[in-house]
Amino acid sequence: MNVSIIAIGDELLIGQVTDTNTTEIANMITPVGWNVRNVRVVRDNASDIRQAIDDALADSDVVLTTGGLGPTKDDITKQVLCDYFGGTLRTDPSVLENIKEVFKRRHLQLNDLTAAQAAVPTSCHVIQNTVGTAPVMWFDRRGKVLVSMPGVPFEMRHAMRNGVLPRLLEHYGHRDVIEHRVLLVTGITESDTARALARIENSLPDYLHLAYLPQPGLLRLRLDGVHTNRDFICGEIDRYADAIAGVLGDHVLWRRDDTPAEIVITLLRRRGLHLATAESCTGGNIAHRITAVAGCSDVYNGSVVSYTNTAKVSLLGVSTATLDSHGAVSREVAAEMARGAIRALGTECAISTTGIAGPSGGTPDKPVGTVCIAVKGPDFEVSARHHFPGSRDRIIDRASTTALLSLARELLDHA
Amino acid sequence: MNVSIIAIGDELLIGQVTDTNTTEIANMITPVGWNVRNVRVVRDNASDIRQAIDDALADSDVVLTTGGLGPTKDDITKQVLCDYFGGTLRTDPSVLENIKEVFKRRHLQLNDLTAAQAAVPTSCHVIQNTVGTAPVMWFDRRGKVLVSMPGVPFEMRHAMRNGVLPRLLEHYGHRDVIEHRVLLVTGITESDTARALARIENSLPDYLHLAYLPQPGLLRLRLDGVHTNRDFICGEIDRYADAIAGVLGDHVLWRRDDTPAEIVITLLRRRGLHLATAESCTGGNIAHRITAVAGCSDVYNGSVVSYTNTAKVSLLGVSTATLDSHGAVSREVAAEMARGAIRALGTECAISTTGIAGPSGGTPDKPVGTVCIAVKGPDFEVSARHHFPGSRDRIIDRASTTALLSLARELLDHA
Repeated sequence: MNVSIIAIGDELLIGQVTDTNTTEIANMITPVGWNVRNVRVVRDNASDIRQAIDDALADSDVVLTTGGLGPTKDDITKQVLCDYFGGTLRTDPSVLENIKEVFKRRHLQLNDLTAAQAAVPTSCHVIQNTVGTAPVMWFDRRGKVLVSMPGVPFEMRHAMRNGVLPRLLEHYGHRDVIEHRVLLVTGITESDTARALARIENSLPDYLHLAYLPQPGLLRLRLDGVHTNRDFICGEIDRYADAIAGVLGDHVLWRRDDTPAEIVITLLRRRGLHLATAESCTGGNIAHRITAVAGCSDVYNGSVVSYTNTAKVSLLGVSTATLDSHGAVSREVAAEMARGAIRALGTECAISTTGIAGPSGGTPDKPVGTVCIAVKGPDFEVSARHHFPGSRDRIIDRASTTALLSLARELLDHA
Repeated sequence: MNVSIIAIGDELLIGQVTDTNTTEIANMITPVGWNVRNVRVVRDNASDIRQAIDDALADSDVVLTTGGLGPTKDDITKQVLCDYFGGTLRTDPSVLENIKEVFKRRHLQLNDLTAAQAAVPTSCHVIQNTVGTAPVMWFDRRGKVLVSMPGVPFEMRHAMRNGVLPRLLEHYGHRDVIEHRVLLVTGITESDTARALARIENSLPDYLHLAYLPQPGLLRLRLDGVHTNRDFICGEIDRYADAIAGVLGDHVLWRRDDTPAEIVITLLRRRGLHLATAESCTGGNIAHRITAVAGCSDVYNGSVVSYTNTAKVSLLGVSTATLDSHGAVSREVAAEMARGAIRALGTECAISTTGIAGPSGGTPDKPVGTVCIAVKGPDFEVSARHHFPGSRDRIIDRASTTALLSLARELLDHA
């Protein structure tokens, strides 16, 4: 089944907003075994929207549009759809009721512009948007379907998950069961992984698909399976996931689609341990990544971001002798920072980073990108010197991922 | 002048990569006074790419393509362009030289696949890509231009800024001078701002354009001016920027396009002050935002991320009495955290946050989104209770911005 996406809105073409809806939709469509064939981004302009619909209906079975449904006069998509698919705009009582409900929840006063959002083309079938005021509209034309969704990402996501995708699957008699397995791989390049997995990949049956999804410092392998028989596909996907894990051995760190911070939190919780962080060059990013996970407070006590040597000494108890003899960017200082964080925050585990994120501050001995990372727990203490390429933000990002994964590795090895 | 963008690559249509190039290109094209008319995202498929080029050349003067130029066999764009515009592929010595240079800088061994990237259609004019191996190719057809650029964002950015855009402007005899002024506005909604500026907006001459670029907790107003006469446009744009600033008064916090962290760093540096942060609910995000700015270490000493009450007491000296009587999420605790951060990190200024980022932990008195923020300096100490809507990450983001802007406001008011 071919799917086309049309993203509508001037804001997408003047550089004000990046279209992230397409990525989200593709991530929901692809695992079903359908293909996003192309995307068109057009202005809030009637003839451009019409042209895009013509072209999309010509090359695809399903057309999903996002955006252009706001209450202001620049949003014309609903009128264009009404003209295109026929009928007239009339107020839908269930949509009006939903809009009133949404406004009540947001403690807002309903105005005429918003009430007008309850008018929908008589040619469409409404899917209620329970998290916003713009209705989701489903149009049929000669066996093909166009669904118009709001452009606000969380409204689109909600509509797609709870209304649009299930109905599309039902509409097209899609009886397949969809299963995924994710393996998080570290310590091996994408191309070496591909080489190692070549035999398995070549033997993959057509109901299985393996995707390489590289991130800085981490490779996600996603095995997608689609079949009518649930027991069969679950058995097959597990069998192939095990085979992949067997080939990659210790390079497979984790077999669930978690972030590095989520992995660390899970492992700490499993062993009843607590974590402190001591960050110099990562400047709070590790703490930020951990605290981005809801409910982390039962295992995470906090961080000392020591951006000066004085702070390393006073808050973390790093010795001035170590700083003098090895320099702030050294495995020795990283190790003392980790020990200091455990003392200062009363934990059993710690992660520490000290390095040169650049763009200045590098030396021939310790060029920009040099980062020393230490991880410490009840039964391990490891420090290592790394070199990460790229810009300041990439170095910070990569060092944060590596530090979290280093702790995860030690917690797994000493479980 | 109408510009179409074609983004090429399977990875954009399976949800693996979000196309951010379009936003970047639009942000370079729009201020010149040209329009990005539409965007097409297509697979690495010859007929899809050809169809997109046909359509784009039909509705636009300039077509910019990104991606599909890698060394692997799935990248077919160069062959498609060669077939489309005529000629044959031949090795360009200057491109080969550049590829060797890039590989040498990256300490990599040249292989056959990469050397093949030096082959370009005889029908194109090469613009050297000095930061990567895929050449930028310029094609002319009946007064229209198609430029093919790599999809790697920093290579595209570099090519666009240094080669493509200047040549396009020259090619089309674009003699206009482009000027911008940015005003950062706080404490007033976008719609109230629009209402306040209605008279000025209605009187804007056609060589000036005002864009509203809202961000969580901050509204960026960008005034773009395009004219052949530099002195004239500079005078006019300043005159209108001053008029806008006059109407909005104190709501205009800053008249340069800086991030909140950059504003704070500039103001601290100007007064020779140093900053410490004490973060609870923002969990290191403020520290991360500050340390994302290169060279911040002359004014930023560090942070204590105190995710437990114990850490607030032991590292920041918050009194247990205050915690008991007011609760951890209170203006009183925020104020003591700020004072404690100044003591612990030896600074003159501090920012502190304590709140409930959710999704759980809220109470009727202090619902999810309640955040107390304190800022302290040599001649001010302010604490306030806020309520931010939305999800956990939005609350953290919004609280971080508000905290930084609160300090900026005090530093400006006490300058």
